[in-house]
Amino acid sequence: MGNIFGQYLKVATFGESHGPATGVVIDGLPAGLKIDPAKIQRDLNRRRPGQSLFTTSRKESDAAEILSGLTAEGLSNGSSLAILIRNEGAESSGYAALAGKFRPGHADWTYFHKYGLLPQPGGGRASGRETAGRVAAGAVARIFLDELSESTLTVRAGAAAVGPVKALARDWDFAESDPLRFLDPALAQKAQDFVKEAMDQGDSVGAVVEVRAEGLPVGMGSPVFNKLEAKLGGAYFSIGAVRAVELGEGLGLAAGLGSQANDSLGPEGPTGDLHGGVLGGISTGRPLICRLFVRPTPSIRKTQKTINIKGEPAEISVSGRHDPCLAPRLAPVAEAMTLLVLADCWLGPYHRMAEKPEPYL
Amino acid sequence: MGNIFGQYLKVATFGESHGPATGVVIDGLPAGLKIDPAKIQRDLNRRRPGQSLFTTSRKESDAAEILSGLTAEGLSNGSSLAILIRNEGAESSGYAALAGKFRPGHADWTYFHKYGLLPQPGGGRASGRETAGRVAAGAVARIFLDELSESTLTVRAGAAAVGPVKALARDWDFAESDPLRFLDPALAQKAQDFVKEAMDQGDSVGAVVEVRAEGLPVGMGSPVFNKLEAKLGGAYFSIGAVRAVELGEGLGLAAGLGSQANDSLGPEGPTGDLHGGVLGGISTGRPLICRLFVRPTPSIRKTQKTINIKGEPAEISVSGRHDPCLAPRLAPVAEAMTLLVLADCWLGPYHRMAEKPEPYL
Amino acid sequence: MGNIFGQYLKVATFGESHGPATGVVIDGLPAGLKIDPAKIQRDLNRRRPGQSLFTTSRKESDAAEILSGLTAEGLSNGSSLAILIRNEGAESSGYAALAGKFRPGHADWTYFHKYGLLPQPGGGRASGRETAGRVAAGAVARIFLDELSESTLTVRAGAAAVGPVKALARDWDFAESDPLRFLDPALAQKAQDFVKEAMDQGDSVGAVVEVRAEGLPVGMGSPVFNKLEAKLGGAYFSIGAVRAVELGEGLGLAAGLGSQANDSLGPEGPTGDLHGGVLGGISTGRPLICRLFVRPTPSIRKTQKTINIKGEPAEISVSGRHDPCLAPRLAPVAEAMTLLVLADCWLGPYHRMAEKPEPYL
Amino acid sequence: MGNIFGQYLKVATFGESHGPATGVVIDGLPAGLKIDPAKIQRDLNRRRPGQSLFTTSRKESDAAEILSGLTAEGLSNGSSLAILIRNEGAESSGYAALAGKFRPGHADWTYFHKYGLLPQPGGGRASGRETAGRVAAGAVARIFLDELSESTLTVRAGAAAVGPVKALARDWDFAESDPLRFLDPALAQKAQDFVKEAMDQGDSVGAVVEVRAEGLPVGMGSPVFNKLEAKLGGAYFSIGAVRAVELGEGLGLAAGLGSQANDSLGPEGPTGDLHGGVLGGISTGRPLICRLFVRPTPSIRKTQKTINIKGEPAEISVSGRHDPCLAPRLAPVAEAMTLLVLADCWLGPYHRMAEKPEPYL
Repeated sequence: MGNIFGQYLKVATFGESHGPATGVVIDGLPAGLKIDPAKIQRDLNRRRPGQSLFTTSRKESDAAEILSGLTAEGLSNGSSLAILIRNEGAESSGYAALAGKFRPGHADWTYFHKYGLLPQPGGGRASGRETAGRVAAGAVARIFLDELSESTLTVRAGAAAVGPVKALARDWDFAESDPLRFLDPALAQKAQDFVKEAMDQGDSVGAVVEVRAEGLPVGMGSPVFNKLEAKLGGAYFSIGAVRAVELGEGLGLAAGLGSQANDSLGPEGPTGDLHGGVLGGISTGRPLICRLFVRPTPSIRKTQKTINIKGEPAEISVSGRHDPCLAPRLAPVAEAMTLLVLADCWLGPYHRMAEKPEPYL
Repeated sequence: MGNIFGQYLKVATFGESHGPATGVVIDGLPAGLKIDPAKIQRDLNRRRPGQSLFTTSRKESDAAEILSGLTAEGLSNGSSLAILIRNEGAESSGYAALAGKFRPGHADWTYFHKYGLLPQPGGGRASGRETAGRVAAGAVARIFLDELSESTLTVRAGAAAVGPVKALARDWDFAESDPLRFLDPALAQKAQDFVKEAMDQGDSVGAVVEVRAEGLPVGMGSPVFNKLEAKLGGAYFSIGAVRAVELGEGLGLAAGLGSQANDSLGPEGPTGDLHGGVLGGISTGRPLICRLFVRPTPSIRKTQKTINIKGEPAEISVSGRHDPCLAPRLAPVAEAMTLLVLADCWLGPYHRMAEKPEPYL
Repeated sequence: MGNIFGQYLKVATFGESHGPATGVVIDGLPAGLKIDPAKIQRDLNRRRPGQSLFTTSRKESDAAEILSGLTAEGLSNGSSLAILIRNEGAESSGYAALAGKFRPGHADWTYFHKYGLLPQPGGGRASGRETAGRVAAGAVARIFLDELSESTLTVRAGAAAVGPVKALARDWDFAESDPLRFLDPALAQKAQDFVKEAMDQGDSVGAVVEVRAEGLPVGMGSPVFNKLEAKLGGAYFSIGAVRAVELGEGLGLAAGLGSQANDSLGPEGPTGDLHGGVLGGISTGRPLICRLFVRPTPSIRKTQKTINIKGEPAEISVSGRHDPCLAPRLAPVAEAMTLLVLADCWLGPYHRMAEKPEPYL
Repeated sequence: MGNIFGQYLKVATFGESHGPATGVVIDGLPAGLKIDPAKIQRDLNRRRPGQSLFTTSRKESDAAEILSGLTAEGLSNGSSLAILIRNEGAESSGYAALAGKFRPGHADWTYFHKYGLLPQPGGGRASGRETAGRVAAGAVARIFLDELSESTLTVRAGAAAVGPVKALARDWDFAESDPLRFLDPALAQKAQDFVKEAMDQGDSVGAVVEVRAEGLPVGMGSPVFNKLEAKLGGAYFSIGAVRAVELGEGLGLAAGLGSQANDSLGPEGPTGDLHGGVLGGISTGRPLICRLFVRPTPSIRKTQKTINIKGEPAEISVSGRHDPCLAPRLAPVAEAMTLLVLADCWLGPYHRMAEKPEPYL
C-alpha cells in the first residue's frame, strides 16, 4: 500500500530500480486535453540520470510510452492514462559486494524487518528510480494546469543551498542549465567546488530545494485537513530524502514576533510572502514558496559501520553509481509533486454555489 | 471537504468557534477496547483555554459527551464513536469592532474569496477551537495504542523554543506543568519573560513544538506516498499555525555531509536519532522526533494595515482574547495528530504473509 | 469502519438503537447553500416510526439539531455540517426476554462472532435506527440538488410490491400518503390486507421498493468502477434488508433477446426505459429507475429455532415493536441513498475541458 | 476517474479496446506471497476471446507481463504489482461502417455527451476488453486468498440461465468446460441451441451468472456502508452488462413472509442459504451465493434505429465480432470482482482487540 497519491487526480506508480519497468496510471484527468508526449519526455529528461558529473552515470533513456487514455487525436479520453518507462541501465554488479549488508541511511534495514526483504539491487522500490513515474504524472498535471491557466501558471524548483553554500539570489533560468540547479549564478561555482571536494573524499552533500509556483488562482486548498500546505507537506515528505519542509519564511517566523509575522492586506490580498502564498490553508494568488531540506545521499564510498543480515557487525563502502548531491534530480520531483497537488486542488469539487461557472471549479 | 482525516482510522471533525458545538466521529476502531471517558477528558483539558496567563481567557468546560460506539460496558463496539463538545464561552462582542475588516494573517481574506464568507465570529471553522475534536479523537487513539503496546508507547509534545529562547534540555514532566509547556526548566522563566514582554506590547510570539513518541514498533509507515514522515508531515501542516516541519535533525543534515548524516546500524537498528526514528519511510523502533515551527498568533493588539470587505484600506487592532503564544495549547494538538497517524499505521493491512499473527498487523 | 459513504460528498453516520443519539457529519457541501432545517425535518418525519399501524410504535420525535456548518444566515459555510438526533423512545424491556439468544435473520450472530458483542438492545448499530443519519444527510443532498437543478430534479420511492401484491400503476402522490407507500391506489387495500393478515399471525412481509429520479442531467456516473449503477448498487445494498437490486427492466432483459433489449436512440438519446436511465454507466437524462427487493422484517412473533450464546438450541419469539413490512420506512432511506449518490456525482471533478463552465461540473 | 477499485487492496486498471495495451496496478498486497505467473495467465485465458463459437473471433494471446512488485524469487515485495497485457487483435475495419452512428445500448451516446468523444473503435474504454486488467488482478487476489485460507477458499461462476433456459442443477466442473459455462449438463445443449438460433437471426441472448464462493471465514464485511453485499453489489454492477444483482434467494424473499425468510440458527450459524451466506452485512461461513442478471450483447446484426452524431435518424447493423451471449466470458470477471472484494475484506484492519492474532486480521 502507499503507491497511490491524490484525491481527485489519482496517480498509481509502480516499479523497482532493477525490475523490468517503472511507470504510472493517472486517473481523473478530464477529457479533451491535448497530451503532447514530448512534454512528458521533456520533464522525464530533466530528471534523467547521467547528465553531468553530479548525477549517477547509470544510463537510462527514460522513454515514455503512453499505453492508454488517449483518443486517436491524442486527446485525453476521460479514462485512465498509463505511462510505461522501461528500465535499461540496471547494473547489479556494484551491489554484489554489498550483499547481505544493510546500507546505513537506506531503507534496507526497515524493509528487511517490515517485509522480510533482503537488501534489493538498486534499492528496489526505495530507489530514486521510483520517482520517474511521479515526474511523468507531474508532466501531465503541468499540461493540464497550463491549459486551465492559459499558460500563466508555472512551477519551478532549484537548489537554494548546497551544503553550507546558500544562494543569495534566485535566477530560475540559470538554475535550469546549472548542473546542480543552483539558483545563484554568483555562487554556483562555489557550490560545485564544495560537491566536488566531497566527491573526492567519497562523501556526499545535503541541499535545500526551493519550489516556486506562480500564477495560482486564489482558492487552492481547503480548511482543516486539506489545507494547501498539508497536501504539499505530505507530498514533499513522500520524496525519499526530504527531512524538513518550510512554507514561506516559516523557520524565521517561529523565532519572532507576531507584529513581524503578518503580511499586511491590500486590495489584492497579502502584500508580502511571509507565508509562502497561503493564508488559512488556501492560496492567496501570490507565489507559492516552499523549501525542501534534503539529506546528503546516503550511499557514500567512505567506510561506515553497519551490520549484516545475521546481525553481525560489519563495515561497508558503497561504491556504486550515486548522485553526490540529490538536489539537481530531486528538483523535478519536487515540481512534479507540486503540480500533482495543484491539479488535485483544481479538480476538487466546486466550493461555492455562486461560483459554479468560474474558471477553476 | 477536508474535514476527514485518516485511511484506516478515519476521523470526521466538525464545529465552528461560535457555533453550537464541536466534535468528531471516529470510524475504524476495533471492538472490545475499553474507552474511559476520563481519559478523553484529560486530553481535552490539556488543550482547554483559560488555564494560565498565556492562554485565552475564554471559558470552556470542554466536557465531552460520547454519543455512540460503546457497549453498555463501555467497550468500543466496532462502529463509529461520536464525541460531542458543546461550545459555552463564545463571546462575539470583541468581534463587532472588527466587523468588515479582514484580520491579517488569518483565514478571513481567503475564506471570503473562496467561500464568499464574511469574516466569521471567532474565525469560524478556522478557529483553534476546531482542534478540540482532533484532541478528543487523539485521546481515543492514545487509549488504543496504549492497549496495543501494553502501555509502552508514549507520545508527548512540548515547546523546544519560544521566540528566540531555545530549550537546551528536555524535561517532559516539567513541560507538562509549565504554562508554556517549555521543555527546559532552566530557561522556562526566560521564555515566560519574553512572552510577557510581547504581551505588554500587544504582540505575540512564535515557537517550536517538539513531538517525541517512544515505544513504537518497527514497521510503521509504508513506501512511497505513505511514508511515516509523509503522513506526519501532512498531519502537522494541517494544524493552523504550523509553517515548517522537521524530522530528526533534518535542517542540519541538509547543510552537511553524508558521512555525518547516516546513523550507523547496530543489532537493534540505527544507533542514533539523526533521522528521527524513521528510515526509508518506516519506523525503526527508536524514538520518533519531529519539530513543528509555529508562527506567532496572528491576532495582536498592535495596529496593522488591512482592508475592509469593500477593498478599502483600513487599520485594525485585534483586542479579543487570544493566546500570546500558541505552543502550550498547540502541543496537545500535535500529540493528537501524531497519535492518529500512529493508530492509522497500526490499523493498516498487514504487510507480510509471514507476520499475520504478529501483535501489530 | 464502514460508517463513511461517498467520494466527494462524504457522510459519516453514527448511533445505535438504544444509545444516546444518532446523527451524521456531512463533508463536501459547497458554501452558500441555504439550509432550511424544516426540510431536513420533513424527510426525517417521513422515516419516523410510529406513524401508522404498519410501523413500530416506538416514539421518537427525531428532532434534528444542526451543530455546525452554517453561517449566521443559515447558509452552508463550506465546512462540515453535523446533525444530531437524540434517541428518546428506546425501550429495552422487550429485549430482556431475548437476552442470550440470537435472533435469526439478524446481525446478532455475526456481530457476536466478528466483534465479540452480545446481542445489543434494539440491534445496536444494526438497527434501522441507523438510517436516521442517512435520511438527514439525504435531505441536505436534496436541498443541494434542488438548488443546482433549479427544482427540476426529484427523487421518490414507493412500494412497487408488498408480498405477492404487485402494483400495476405508479401514483407517486398517492404513495406518499399511503401507510405502506404503495404505488397503486387500486391495489393498496389488498396490500394492506395482506400485511394485516400476516401481522395477525405474528408474521411479516417482504416488498419491492421502487426508486424513480427525474430531471437528472446527462453525464452522472463514470466509466468502469464509478458507473452510476455501481454507485447506486453499493448504496442500496448497504440498506439493511435489501437482497436484490434491479436497474430498469434488468430482470426481464436477462431472460430475453438483444433485439428487444436496446432502447432505440433518438435526438434526445434513448427513447425508452429498458436500462433505467443509464447507458454505459452514465445517466442519459431519462428517469432513473431502480427496484430494491426487501426481505420481510426478520423480527417476528412466530416461534423460530435458534441458539443461545452458549451454542445451545433454543426457541425464540420476538415480540418487541417492529414494522411488519419495511417498505414504507425504507422508501425514504432509498431516496436518501439515491440523493447522496447523485449529489456525489454532481460534485465530482469536471470531466471535460470544454465543459468547465457548464452547470454541472 | 473511476478506474480505481478497493479500499485496502486497490487496483487501478487501464486500457482501451483498440489502444496499445490494457493492464492493472495492484496496491496493497502483503510481501512474501509467491506469485506464479502461470496462475495469472490461467485466469486470463479463461476470459480470453476466440475460444468457442460463442465468443468473439478476435484473437488475443492476452499474455501477461509482470512489470513490478516481485523479488528476484518471485515473491511479492510489498509494493505495487503492475501487469501489462498488450493488445494484438484490434481490428477497426468493422467499425468504419459505423462511423458517426451511435450504437444503441452502448456507451457511445453518453460518452459523446459527457466526454465529447466520437464513438471509439471497439468501444474504447467501455469495451469488454477493459475487464482483462480486472481478471489479472482477480487472479492475484485468488493466489492471496488461496494462501491465506490454505486452499480452502474457492470462487467460481457459471451460467445459471441463458435466455429463458434455466439451469436446474449446479455442476461447476461441467460449467468450466462448457462453451457457455452453463451449470446444468442436462440443459446445456438446449441453452446452446437457443443461442445458436439467436445468432442465426443476428440476435444476442441475455443470461444469469451465478457466483459461488466457498470456504469464507466468518466476519467478512462490516456494518453500514461496508456490508459485504454492498461491496459486492457495487463491484458486480461495475461490470458492463449487469442489470440486476441478487444475494441468496433475495427475489423470492421479497415476495414472501418473514416466517419463511429466516434461516434458523444452529451451532454453526445459519442452517440454510436464503441470504446467500451473509447476515447483517457480514459473512457467516456458509457459501456466498450471488446472481448477476446480464443483458444480451447490445451489438447485434439486426437492424436498429439510431441517430448519427449530427442527431439525424439512421439505421445501424453492428456486424463486428461480438459474443452472442456474454455469460461465458463475464463469469471470470464476476469471479475476479468477488475475489477482489474478499481480499479487500480480508486485508481490512482487524476489527476486534481480542482477535489480533487470528488468521484473518
